[in-house]
Amino acid sequence: MTDRTTQESRPTVPDPRKAETATGTVLSRRRLLGTAGATGLVLGAAGAGIGYAAAPAGATPLTALGSDRAVFHGKHQPGITEGLQAQGHLAAFDLAAGAGRKEAAALLRRWSATAERLMAGEPAAHGDTEVARDAGPSSLTITFGFGHSFFDRTGLLKQRPAALDPLPAFSSDRLDRARSDGDLWVQIGADDALVAFHALRAVQKDAGGAARLRWQMNGFNRSPGATARPRTARNLMGQVDGTHNPRPGDADFDRRVFVPADGDPGWMANGSYVVVRRIRMLLDDWEKLSLTQQENVMGRRKSDGAPLSGGTETTEMDLEKTGEDGSYVVPVNAHARITRPDQNGGAAMLRRPFSYHDGFDAGGVPDAGLLFICWQADPLRGFVPVQRKLDRGDALSQYVRHEASGLFAVPGGAAKGEYVGQRLLEG
Amino acid sequence: MTDRTTQESRPTVPDPRKAETATGTVLSRRRLLGTAGATGLVLGAAGAGIGYAAAPAGATPLTALGSDRAVFHGKHQPGITEGLQAQGHLAAFDLAAGAGRKEAAALLRRWSATAERLMAGEPAAHGDTEVARDAGPSSLTITFGFGHSFFDRTGLLKQRPAALDPLPAFSSDRLDRARSDGDLWVQIGADDALVAFHALRAVQKDAGGAARLRWQMNGFNRSPGATARPRTARNLMGQVDGTHNPRPGDADFDRRVFVPADGDPGWMANGSYVVVRRIRMLLDDWEKLSLTQQENVMGRRKSDGAPLSGGTETTEMDLEKTGEDGSYVVPVNAHARITRPDQNGGAAMLRRPFSYHDGFDAGGVPDAGLLFICWQADPLRGFVPVQRKLDRGDALSQYVRHEASGLFAVPGGAAKGEYVGQRLLEG
Repeated sequence: MTDRTTQESRPTVPDPRKAETATGTVLSRRRLLGTAGATGLVLGAAGAGIGYAAAPAGATPLTALGSDRAVFHGKHQPGITEGLQAQGHLAAFDLAAGAGRKEAAALLRRWSATAERLMAGEPAAHGDTEVARDAGPSSLTITFGFGHSFFDRTGLLKQRPAALDPLPAFSSDRLDRARSDGDLWVQIGADDALVAFHALRAVQKDAGGAARLRWQMNGFNRSPGATARPRTARNLMGQVDGTHNPRPGDADFDRRVFVPADGDPGWMANGSYVVVRRIRMLLDDWEKLSLTQQENVMGRRKSDGAPLSGGTETTEMDLEKTGEDGSYVVPVNAHARITRPDQNGGAAMLRRPFSYHDGFDAGGVPDAGLLFICWQADPLRGFVPVQRKLDRGDALSQYVRHEASGLFAVPGGAAKGEYVGQRLLEG
Repeated sequence: MTDRTTQESRPTVPDPRKAETATGTVLSRRRLLGTAGATGLVLGAAGAGIGYAAAPAGATPLTALGSDRAVFHGKHQPGITEGLQAQGHLAAFDLAAGAGRKEAAALLRRWSATAERLMAGEPAAHGDTEVARDAGPSSLTITFGFGHSFFDRTGLLKQRPAALDPLPAFSSDRLDRARSDGDLWVQIGADDALVAFHALRAVQKDAGGAARLRWQMNGFNRSPGATARPRTARNLMGQVDGTHNPRPGDADFDRRVFVPADGDPGWMANGSYVVVRRIRMLLDDWEKLSLTQQENVMGRRKSDGAPLSGGTETTEMDLEKTGEDGSYVVPVNAHARITRPDQNGGAAMLRRPFSYHDGFDAGGVPDAGLLFICWQADPLRGFVPVQRKLDRGDALSQYVRHEASGLFAVPGGAAKGEYVGQRLLEG
C-alpha cells in the first residue's frame, strides 16, 4: 500500500526501495554552492534525528523536499539566494504605541532565535503550536527587514539609509496603503504549507505587545519535483519568469545584490534592499489574447521563454532583427525588450517572487497575480530605473496593476550569538 | 550547483545520481492498491513523455511528486480515495439564467473532457493558459457533484436523491449562505499549486455562459516527502487528524463510502455524498490553552494522536479508564470520545480535508481552519449523527465555528467515452 492510496495515518511497513531512494536523494543534494557570494546554503540533511522529524520506527523517510535545510547564521540572511520555495508568507508589522528601540531590539532577538530553531526543524522555544510537528525543515527560510517608518519610531533617523527614500510614483500604481509599507517586514518561505504557516504564527506570537500585524500575503511557486525545468518560475500568465536573473557565481552577483562589507550605513554591510509589489494580473483580459498576441506583448515564446528573434531561453535577444514586413521581430514595446539587462545596468536586481491567488470577486474575476520580490544593493540602480522604463510604454502594463508596495532594508546575516539588526539596534 | 541554490531557469547539466534517484522514486511508487474498493488509482509514471512534462535535454527529471498520476475513468470518480494532496481548490457554480438540463449536460461533457486531459498532464483542448506547462500531472484530481438546487433548475426533481435533503441546523453553525450550497460542485487537488490553479481556471473557462462561479475556497495539506508520517493529516490546531478513517481495503469500506451498484437512484450507482464545511478554528483561543488542556479537549495526545488512556495512535480508546481522582482519563466531553467510530455506526464517513488560511482580520486574528470534506454512502448515517452528538457537548466546539456548508451528490466515475453525470442527464 503506498502513501498515495491510503487515508490512514499509521506508520506503514518500511519499503526498502523507498528508504534507499530517499537516502540517495538526500545525498545527491548535500552539496555546497562553490561561490563566495552565496550563503544561507541549503543542505540536504538526514531525515531522522532532525528536531521534530525524528522518524517513528517503520516510517517512510523524508524526501529531500522535507529534509533540505537552509542555514540561519551567515554573511547574508537566508531567503535571498536560495531557490524558489513552494509556499510563502509575507507580513509587515508596525511597532505598538510606546514601543521604541529597546522593544524593537528585544523583538528582533526573539525573532532571530525563533528563525534559527524553526529553520533547523526544531519547535519554537515557548508554546509551540506543533503544526510543523513530524515535518522536516522543508527548506524553511525566515528573513527580516526594516521599513522607512521604523527609523522615526525608534529614534534612529541618523541610521536610516538614503536607499529607503520612498519609491517614485508610477502610472500603473493603484496602491492600497493599508497593504503597503510597514515598520518591519518578514518573509517566510518553505516547501511545505504547514511548515510555513507554523512559522508565520510563531513570528506573530513573538511580536506580542511590541508590534502588531499591518498586512500579510500568501504566495506559492511550483513544488520541487513537479517540473523537469529546475526551479523555473512560470507565473500565472503562463510565462517563463526570471530568465535574466543574475546567478550566484556570476562575477558581479554580489555587487548587484548585496551592500558591500564596507558599505554605508555600516549596519547594512552584506545586507540588501528588497522591493515588494503585489502585482495583480488581469487574467481575464490576458487570456483573451491569442498566443501570438501574448508573445508579442512579452517578446518571448510562451512555450520556452526563447526570444522571438530565435534560439533558446538563454540566447541573446536580437533587437534589430526584422520580419518580412520590415517591423522588428521583438516589438518595440515588448516587455522583454524594455527590461533587457544590458539596457538597465546589467540586471541589477534579483527577482525571487511568489504567485498569489486570493479567490475571485463577486463577478468571477480572479484576485491573482505575482508577489513581486526583488533584491538589490541599491533600489535606485535596480528596481526604479526598470520600472520607470516600463512606465513609459511596456505592452504588458495594461494587463497588470500594482496594488501594494513596500521597500525594506534587509541587514546582513547574523553571526552565531547575534540577532538580525543587532548592529543597528545596539550600534 | 543544485536546483536549491540557483535562481536561474536554464536546464542544468544532468547529475547521474539524481537521475538514478528520481527513476528509483518513480518506480517505487508504481504500485497498485490491491483492493477491490479503491479506484482513481495513483500510478507512478515516467516523467519524460507525459503531455506537457516532456523533459528538455539535460533537464532534471521529475520526482514522483510531479509524475504521479490519478486516473479519470473508473468505477468511482477520482479525488475520494487517493491520499491527501498538497493543494486544493473547492468551487461551486450556479447554472446561468435560462440554462437547464441540456446546457448542464454539455457543461459536464466539457468538464469531463478537461479533467481527463489535465489529469494526464496534457493541456486543455482549447485556449490552454500554459500555467501547468513543464509540470507533470502532480496527482491532479478533478471531481464533480450536484447540489439540491440543481434538480429544480434542470427539471430533474424526480431524480433528486432524498440524501440531498438539507442538513439539519447545528448550534455551532454560523453559515454564510453566499459561501454555501450551489448547483454544481468541483473539487480540485494536486501536489503542485500551479497545476491546481491551472485546472481551476480551465474549469471556470469551461463553465462559459452556462454557469457562474458561486463561491471558491483554497486549501492545503502537507507536501509529499515533508514528513516521515505517511500522509498523516495534522491540522492547524496541531492535532493529528483522520486516525479512525475507514481505509480502502477494509471489509466495509465500500459500503460506508459508496452508493451500491444497485443503489437508489440508479444514476448514483458507485457514487458518494460529500459534506463540505468551512470550519474556522479560533486559534488565538486554542493556543492560549496548555498542552494538557488541549489534550483533554481532544482526548488524545497531541504529539502522536494516541488516546489519553494509553498506547499508540491506533490503540483502542479505553473509555472506562479512570485516573487517581476517579474521573475518566478520557473526559466525557472529549472530541475523540464523542466521535469514536463504534459510537457512531462504525465511522460511516471518510474524511479527506484541506486546511485553509485566508489571511488575518484587522485585529490580527487568523481566518484559518479546516475545509472539512467527508464522503459517505448516506449522510444520514455518516455526517449527521456525528455532528448531532458533537452539537450536544463536544469540548472542541467552542474553538471552532462552521462558517459555510454544502452537501453534494457525486456520481460514480465515467467509463471511457462517457462523461460524469451522463446517466442522470441523459437517463
